[in-house]
Amino acid sequence: MNEMLHGIRVLDFTSNAAGPCCTGMLADYGAEVIKIERPNTGNDERTYGIQVDGMSLLGAWLNRGKKSVTLDLKDPDSIALLKRMVQDCHILVESARPGVMDKLGLGYEAIHAINPKLVYCSVSAFGQAGPYSKKPGYDLIAQAMSGIMDICGAQDGPPVKSGTTLSDYVGAINAFGSIMTALRYAEQTGIGQKIDVSLLMTMIYLNGAVEYLNIGQKLTRSGNHHNTLAPYGLFEGKNGQSIVLAVISPKLWAAFCQVMEKPELADDPRFHTLQQRRANAPALIALIEDWLKTFDDISQAAALLDAAGIPSAKVFDQEDVWTDPHVLDQNYLVDVPTPSAVTSKDTFKARGCIAKFSETPGCVKRAPCVGENNEEILSRYGMTAQEIQALQDRWAKS
Amino acid sequence: MNEMLHGIRVLDFTSNAAGPCCTGMLADYGAEVIKIERPNTGNDERTYGIQVDGMSLLGAWLNRGKKSVTLDLKDPDSIALLKRMVQDCHILVESARPGVMDKLGLGYEAIHAINPKLVYCSVSAFGQAGPYSKKPGYDLIAQAMSGIMDICGAQDGPPVKSGTTLSDYVGAINAFGSIMTALRYAEQTGIGQKIDVSLLMTMIYLNGAVEYLNIGQKLTRSGNHHNTLAPYGLFEGKNGQSIVLAVISPKLWAAFCQVMEKPELADDPRFHTLQQRRANAPALIALIEDWLKTFDDISQAAALLDAAGIPSAKVFDQEDVWTDPHVLDQNYLVDVPTPSAVTSKDTFKARGCIAKFSETPGCVKRAPCVGENNEEILSRYGMTAQEIQALQDRWAKS
Repeated sequence: MNEMLHGIRVLDFTSNAAGPCCTGMLADYGAEVIKIERPNTGNDERTYGIQVDGMSLLGAWLNRGKKSVTLDLKDPDSIALLKRMVQDCHILVESARPGVMDKLGLGYEAIHAINPKLVYCSVSAFGQAGPYSKKPGYDLIAQAMSGIMDICGAQDGPPVKSGTTLSDYVGAINAFGSIMTALRYAEQTGIGQKIDVSLLMTMIYLNGAVEYLNIGQKLTRSGNHHNTLAPYGLFEGKNGQSIVLAVISPKLWAAFCQVMEKPELADDPRFHTLQQRRANAPALIALIEDWLKTFDDISQAAALLDAAGIPSAKVFDQEDVWTDPHVLDQNYLVDVPTPSAVTSKDTFKARGCIAKFSETPGCVKRAPCVGENNEEILSRYGMTAQEIQALQDRWAKS
Repeated sequence: MNEMLHGIRVLDFTSNAAGPCCTGMLADYGAEVIKIERPNTGNDERTYGIQVDGMSLLGAWLNRGKKSVTLDLKDPDSIALLKRMVQDCHILVESARPGVMDKLGLGYEAIHAINPKLVYCSVSAFGQAGPYSKKPGYDLIAQAMSGIMDICGAQDGPPVKSGTTLSDYVGAINAFGSIMTALRYAEQTGIGQKIDVSLLMTMIYLNGAVEYLNIGQKLTRSGNHHNTLAPYGLFEGKNGQSIVLAVISPKLWAAFCQVMEKPELADDPRFHTLQQRRANAPALIALIEDWLKTFDDISQAAALLDAAGIPSAKVFDQEDVWTDPHVLDQNYLVDVPTPSAVTSKDTFKARGCIAKFSETPGCVKRAPCVGENNEEILSRYGMTAQEIQALQDRWAKS
């Protein structure tokens, strides 16, 4: 298989979610990602979520396709070794609290002096500099401080956090693209550099604020309905099911009234124009939800709307997503080989690569067990199997 | 200034938000992005949001740093010209409904035959193939069908849509990184390819589902509080203000009780252990919110928590974000030159580049007016000023 990043070597010091997801993407496209993790237990993401035979499946997804080398970063022997390894790596990614890599002797300046062509990417909650840079950062805090939470939820209710670790994932995708851009530049010019990716800035990027910044108009929560269009938003049916609906033209409004078998509403003075529909939004919403509640399964309503060409969709739960014929048709559900320590199943299911490439499709590969590649990797740097074992034994006792 | 993408030429057929944001990122890093848009009015994003002197500021942000060339894609002369332009471009990005570019004679096969090294990226709601590929797609629909909406909001309330056009922005960041990866590969191997980025698959990527896919455990809405940790989540104070709080250890719980000046709570049998706090979560939340409501400004509570080392943050609104000393310290607030048609102000304010590069920082540049670069660009392909004008005149009348 042609792999876009074949021959690219990555030293990966990341832990938790954002950093490992980013380096997992590098592995999907064929980079050799050498995960440096703590001896014995390995890094924290190995404990996340459900475990099979003692291995976290989420951890296995985050660390897909990587090689694991265990090193105790408090041991000067480890640092000396890493400084040799850095010489023939192209990318280094780390997600420690700002300042920690410097203290270890692995900060950007030290590494750049050894390998000026290397792309050094730091992923952190708040960025490498500034008043909050050394504060503990969590996905939840980046969501709160980006303003994203404040614009989610009902107007008369509290802000709403995302149900997923949004900043971790979007931060990972940002770091990936930023690294690729700098890698290409480094290969062409010989100029490596430091990239500072912060979860907070990534989340702020998603929250435009052009209006606020230029005319002082603050965006607030508008609940599940659009500020200016109607009907446009989320509508509830029976049994907790709901749909989204985007009726964006007079023609679609007339068609929608037909679907509801209430053609008279199209000319109803409460709902005839967009202005009228907005002015009578509560009545409009109630009427649509009454109609939706005539269906035991909201998919039936969605099918009618779809047939009439009205932009709409059932609000999918995870089961709907992963049984949907279109999603399945994308070959986005993949079987990932389990880490070798998992004996009860050969593969687990996960989503595939984030984009489809016609000539060089990525591949989600097996994650390593803790220290699985110690000998393979460290022997390249002149260590014998005995020396490697002696180091690991020393750390096991400490 | 060193620009990472200096010398890279992009043909940009995108409109709306996701595609233009992606090509805007290419422009931030120095690519020459030639935006092909419809004569006279230009593309739809020019009408978005607030207008200054008839120019949309959001449109100006989305189209930052690009060059605008107006061509009527229904005119065979335009297609012939574009086929010449494609010969010396490196990247083509489009966001039309799947099938439209093929019909125009600008589909991947046709373009690849002319320039096999070109990276051709399609950004769409549902992807280029599969049962829904030709359905109309909107950010809202991708949010609904990804399952992301279903996991946002209170357990006993409806799903909640994001207050931002989440799939558009995350789709843009995904497309950008995918293009960079394929560009580097094309430059090294001569092998161009087609990239299929879909908003739906991008959003599904953010919604892990490893548990559901492997043990059938469906993630549901858990409101603003964590499933297993307590107190961890969003807590409301006075006047609609709120904070997030992550008390993740016994030590932090004791410290938190001190901050509330209720040290006795640390040993209270309702709250002593994590299990007890979870079992009595409603009482715990009420108690914390009562304390928060003693502050007229919740920032005061946040400062006390911060001083005690308790991970916490005020839930920022847009004003909080853009007046925060840390955010301002990142130099993330930039002055972007306004399009030349804007005479009432020279610059507008917007967020800067999505990551910080130490050697080649990006730059958010002026957006073009409709057709501003017709002569500059089209004269490269052998057209005289008269011929260009004749074409534009012909289209103006049609």
